[in-house]
Amino acid sequence: MIEHHDVTIRVRYAETDQMGVVYHSNYFIWFEVGRVELMRAMGFDYKRMEIEDDTYIVVADAHCRYHHPARYDELLTVRTRILEARNRVLKFGYEVFRSSDQALLATGDTVHISCNRNGQVKHFPEKYKQAFLAIAASLSTHRSPA
Amino acid sequence: MIEHHDVTIRVRYAETDQMGVVYHSNYFIWFEVGRVELMRAMGFDYKRMEIEDDTYIVVADAHCRYHHPARYDELLTVRTRILEARNRVLKFGYEVFRSSDQALLATGDTVHISCNRNGQVKHFPEKYKQAFLAIAASLSTHRSPA
Amino acid sequence: MIEHHDVTIRVRYAETDQMGVVYHSNYFIWFEVGRVELMRAMGFDYKRMEIEDDTYIVVADAHCRYHHPARYDELLTVRTRILEARNRVLKFGYEVFRSSDQALLATGDTVHISCNRNGQVKHFPEKYKQAFLAIAASLSTHRSPA
Amino acid sequence: MIEHHDVTIRVRYAETDQMGVVYHSNYFIWFEVGRVELMRAMGFDYKRMEIEDDTYIVVADAHCRYHHPARYDELLTVRTRILEARNRVLKFGYEVFRSSDQALLATGDTVHISCNRNGQVKHFPEKYKQAFLAIAASLSTHRSPA
Repeated sequence: MIEHHDVTIRVRYAETDQMGVVYHSNYFIWFEVGRVELMRAMGFDYKRMEIEDDTYIVVADAHCRYHHPARYDELLTVRTRILEARNRVLKFGYEVFRSSDQALLATGDTVHISCNRNGQVKHFPEKYKQAFLAIAASLSTHRSPA
Repeated sequence: MIEHHDVTIRVRYAETDQMGVVYHSNYFIWFEVGRVELMRAMGFDYKRMEIEDDTYIVVADAHCRYHHPARYDELLTVRTRILEARNRVLKFGYEVFRSSDQALLATGDTVHISCNRNGQVKHFPEKYKQAFLAIAASLSTHRSPA
Repeated sequence: MIEHHDVTIRVRYAETDQMGVVYHSNYFIWFEVGRVELMRAMGFDYKRMEIEDDTYIVVADAHCRYHHPARYDELLTVRTRILEARNRVLKFGYEVFRSSDQALLATGDTVHISCNRNGQVKHFPEKYKQAFLAIAASLSTHRSPA
Repeated sequence: MIEHHDVTIRVRYAETDQMGVVYHSNYFIWFEVGRVELMRAMGFDYKRMEIEDDTYIVVADAHCRYHHPARYDELLTVRTRILEARNRVLKFGYEVFRSSDQALLATGDTVHISCNRNGQVKHFPEKYKQAFLAIAASLSTHRSPA
């Protein structure tokens, strides 16, 4: 059972703004990297999910709280976990740490709906559903922190 | 008293993703356009606020709910209002409409902290504070919807 | 005959970097805005070109020379013209001016290949070809500057 | 003597567009990653170069030729080399390969000017100049391909 997954990112110059810190919308791109890598660690390839299973995980809600700014060239850890899993809905939680001192820079969460190519809501295919619901069951007993 | 401010944006190709819709992080960039134009309509130039008043409106929290996807080349209306104003905190609310049929595509809000160049929290300069607090007072009596 | 087309853009905060100026890759996004609006002025809707005519104008080459930096909140004029038109190739030229004083900030050009949905090279559909070649013919007689 | 430096990048969803491939301006961001890592491999930290030596490597010219599209989730190799080094000018060359089959997807180059914080042209500080000019000398004898 994967409790969470960590991926390391280095801040790009393009991601900074004239305040000298990372522009806030970039965290949502890092969250995407985090959840794709969490799924890969679970054995799922999101690219194939789209192509072979006609399943798109559409973003329905996105939220980020910024504690301390990330800066150019810093190495960051994006820690991702599944907070909630239902037949057609997945909720991910994220923490962004500065790798050098483990300072918590940001926390966030995103809600996703399972859709087909045309944007119609559908159940997750069976193989994903089993894995996601197993995690959900685990969450409800273990009460892992969000 | 400005109740809200509308600005029109046309979706750029660069803002789409391979799902054929706008990538979700771009809405936060449009929100930025919305609040800058709202402030300009109030008589404030955010560029000068940084340069002349050493006041940066740092993003502390950002949230967006996605109702319907925006697509390439569509004209959108970003409607922005101030939801809350305090000595060192501003909260903005946003609605993104498709201009062609006024469909509501997304709603969101961002919380901002007044900081100086070095990221230290400070009160808003007097001229801004007066204007923001006047709006806040108006909000508490009129209960304008978020 | 359209000699060139001007479109106005306001620099977004997200487009700046920690050097306090616009990050250089953003000019290519503005070039895209310029050529889409040039085509719209010629009566062509690039969105329909993709959907109805299965014609994609794929970027084969992109170049930009930076003369002076663009800065946050500045209004810019992107001036676009067609430099070259052949059966399957289009070349656009761009100039970016600061609107306040008409200073030339950047110049560039992009080469595009006509492709179908699957990325296979194809001739431009007849209606576009006529218009593009007419411009090309005009260019070879008038020698309009690049 | 560093002949070239390779860095691996994974394509992010945010970098794709509705054509189903990477939007072309993103290659310039990858080039930036390439040259920062080349400099790090040479023992130089670009972040410190800005902060400690007041030296900014401002982009004066950027060019990219696109051979084959990069796609979502692909691993890419960005190969960077110094093509030219003078007292105040650096030119980098780039090749982007798809890691899976070493297909060459794009080639490019960027020209940079050494500036101070205020954008005034200056010589590179001695320590950088020595290293850059040694490479330039090596290039003129070895004629390494661009």
